[in-house]
Amino acid sequence: MIDKTSIDELVRGAEEVLLPEELKSKLARGKPLRVKAGFDPTAPDLHLGHTVLINKLRQFQQAGHEIIFLIGDFTGMIGDPTGRNVMRQPLTREEIQQNAETYHEQIFKILDPEKTVVEFNSAWMDQKSAADLVRLASKYTVARMLERNDFDKRYQSGQGIAIHEFLYPLIQGYDSVALKADVELGGTDQKFNLLVGREIQKEYGQEPQVIMTMPILEGVTQGPEKMSKSLDNYIGIGEAPNEIFGKIMSIDDNKMWRWFELLSFRPMSEIDLFKEDIGKGENPRDIKFKLALEITERFHGAHAAHAAKADFIQRFQKSAIPDDVPEKNIQCTAGRIPIGNLLKDAGMVASTSEAIRMIRQGAVKIDGVKVEDVKLVLHVGTSGVFQVGKRRIAKISLS
Amino acid sequence: MIDKTSIDELVRGAEEVLLPEELKSKLARGKPLRVKAGFDPTAPDLHLGHTVLINKLRQFQQAGHEIIFLIGDFTGMIGDPTGRNVMRQPLTREEIQQNAETYHEQIFKILDPEKTVVEFNSAWMDQKSAADLVRLASKYTVARMLERNDFDKRYQSGQGIAIHEFLYPLIQGYDSVALKADVELGGTDQKFNLLVGREIQKEYGQEPQVIMTMPILEGVTQGPEKMSKSLDNYIGIGEAPNEIFGKIMSIDDNKMWRWFELLSFRPMSEIDLFKEDIGKGENPRDIKFKLALEITERFHGAHAAHAAKADFIQRFQKSAIPDDVPEKNIQCTAGRIPIGNLLKDAGMVASTSEAIRMIRQGAVKIDGVKVEDVKLVLHVGTSGVFQVGKRRIAKISLS
Repeated sequence: MIDKTSIDELVRGAEEVLLPEELKSKLARGKPLRVKAGFDPTAPDLHLGHTVLINKLRQFQQAGHEIIFLIGDFTGMIGDPTGRNVMRQPLTREEIQQNAETYHEQIFKILDPEKTVVEFNSAWMDQKSAADLVRLASKYTVARMLERNDFDKRYQSGQGIAIHEFLYPLIQGYDSVALKADVELGGTDQKFNLLVGREIQKEYGQEPQVIMTMPILEGVTQGPEKMSKSLDNYIGIGEAPNEIFGKIMSIDDNKMWRWFELLSFRPMSEIDLFKEDIGKGENPRDIKFKLALEITERFHGAHAAHAAKADFIQRFQKSAIPDDVPEKNIQCTAGRIPIGNLLKDAGMVASTSEAIRMIRQGAVKIDGVKVEDVKLVLHVGTSGVFQVGKRRIAKISLS
Repeated sequence: MIDKTSIDELVRGAEEVLLPEELKSKLARGKPLRVKAGFDPTAPDLHLGHTVLINKLRQFQQAGHEIIFLIGDFTGMIGDPTGRNVMRQPLTREEIQQNAETYHEQIFKILDPEKTVVEFNSAWMDQKSAADLVRLASKYTVARMLERNDFDKRYQSGQGIAIHEFLYPLIQGYDSVALKADVELGGTDQKFNLLVGREIQKEYGQEPQVIMTMPILEGVTQGPEKMSKSLDNYIGIGEAPNEIFGKIMSIDDNKMWRWFELLSFRPMSEIDLFKEDIGKGENPRDIKFKLALEITERFHGAHAAHAAKADFIQRFQKSAIPDDVPEKNIQCTAGRIPIGNLLKDAGMVASTSEAIRMIRQGAVKIDGVKVEDVKLVLHVGTSGVFQVGKRRIAKISLS
């Protein structure tokens, strides 16, 4: 049975939906849609960034649609034999099977294993002959392939594009034909390939899929960098509960709302109420607790999540606050004050530049949470335990 | 056994040989070379232009090399399903077999059927999987493919190139791998594809083939247009002996030498002697008789060829020369005289411009053969029956 999830909720957080009216009319038929998302068969060690897409699959699944988790093993088994990238060795069937199992362990913390179809594109591509592939390649032009942004850049800059790289988007597009996909989800970087899928479906006489691209999640550290292992700003879904909980508590408030939108299973209406609560004076930290609790629970269960929260609070209390913390009240006539000036006015640093240096060293905390932004501005009404290094501690209220 | 055919003779008439030193060193090994030429499986109704390539195959065959007549049926069976060119319907296996038999009937008038290997590239390409083709496509870059002249033009002008068109040269190149070709022959328009074959062979660990391109034969009418059915300037190898003989007799003297080089099986040394003979006063018509006789005999046997010659002579005599032809002796102090001046001096035209006009109208004949070249120069010692229109006839000798 198709759930009456509103279309706004179904597309929440999405970067782009093409075409929204097609999605509406597909949904209006009242039949479960076939929703496809493709995944690389290499080393699936998922972090929260990867789960944005899987969460969207879950949303469709919860609404009663059929979701297809497609592992693109066909190309993985071929590898990239150009010799340019020696890292991309072809995977053996055993390695792919192993990687698939690792996927299962992880994705079924989010998706319902009973209702999730896992497919491998080798199932149909291995049956295809060279002649079939020539026919598929006749469906698309060189010029349109070169319109893809990264292809165009590489071509213009004289970097080699091997011809088989033109075949991969076509094969991915053909997967949509083989699966009769109604909707395909992917990252924003997949937009071109998803659009090729629409064209290839039309060529094979199918109604084109709706495509929905999901944004890249930003990392835990300050700034817009995407969450990735190489930047060490990620939260692995296999990490310990305390790690997950603590890292989520370290993100700033703006990021928190984006994470709620992309990572929480709460409806947006509920999240909007949280915003109202903060407007009414609720401590943002308590709202962030809800997010950290929900995500930690997702991967480790309710018990571990609550223990992580308790541990976080205890560590925060223990780590920081001696009994005899001096209390200071800082008057700020402008209604707001930058962190550097505040620390200087409170006598905790000799100068704002020392303050900035200490922040950069990660030595400044408010209520046990590291300050990342040297330009952080605090508003009248704020109060908390401020720490510079291990020794300099004060309970400050701004008035 | 490898014949000691000189390399000059082996490359005679060729437009380009890449690389000549590789050909030398391959030949120096003293083993038969595998010499490949590919042919389209569609409608093989051969004319003399097509035989230029087949004659070159014959030369290698006569010298003891193994020649491979490759019919590219794999792509013919796929056809061109882009819909842009509705004429190129895929051929059925039966049609291809039929076309192949038509080829046999024709090519074995030139090649030795006992020593000719006929192959179809479907023999190996039908066994290839889509994955194999992806691997093959990884061996070559988009940029290098777009360097091909006609691809580049179409790309620049915004005409569509479908992606499978990039696969055809690779498949043709792979044919050289499958056949372990030492040499590949082709028309000048095939140069790019033949070069791809070299690259693909290297990628598969083979010594690259030598490529030899053969020029396009010009048609029977005046001018450099290539021989083709659409221009109606061709000699089909299935035409009647009288047709073949008569059409060859109608070509001009310059063209005759090129035809000797590309179509005659006589060694160049013998052809050079013919040139000397003309220098010594032999009638070019008699030399042209040798070419016409050789070619007609090739396709219809000696008896029919000699009958065609006799018929030609008889028709020429009957058609043209009354008994009472006036005889004139033209003195030419320079040793040579342009045709226009000769006709004027002989009183057969009022002016050289009338002569030129009459030649352009095809109204001037020497010994029954139409003069095509308005700048034809005749040398002392020439004698023959000159005709302007139907009435003005004279037997002229130049002294």
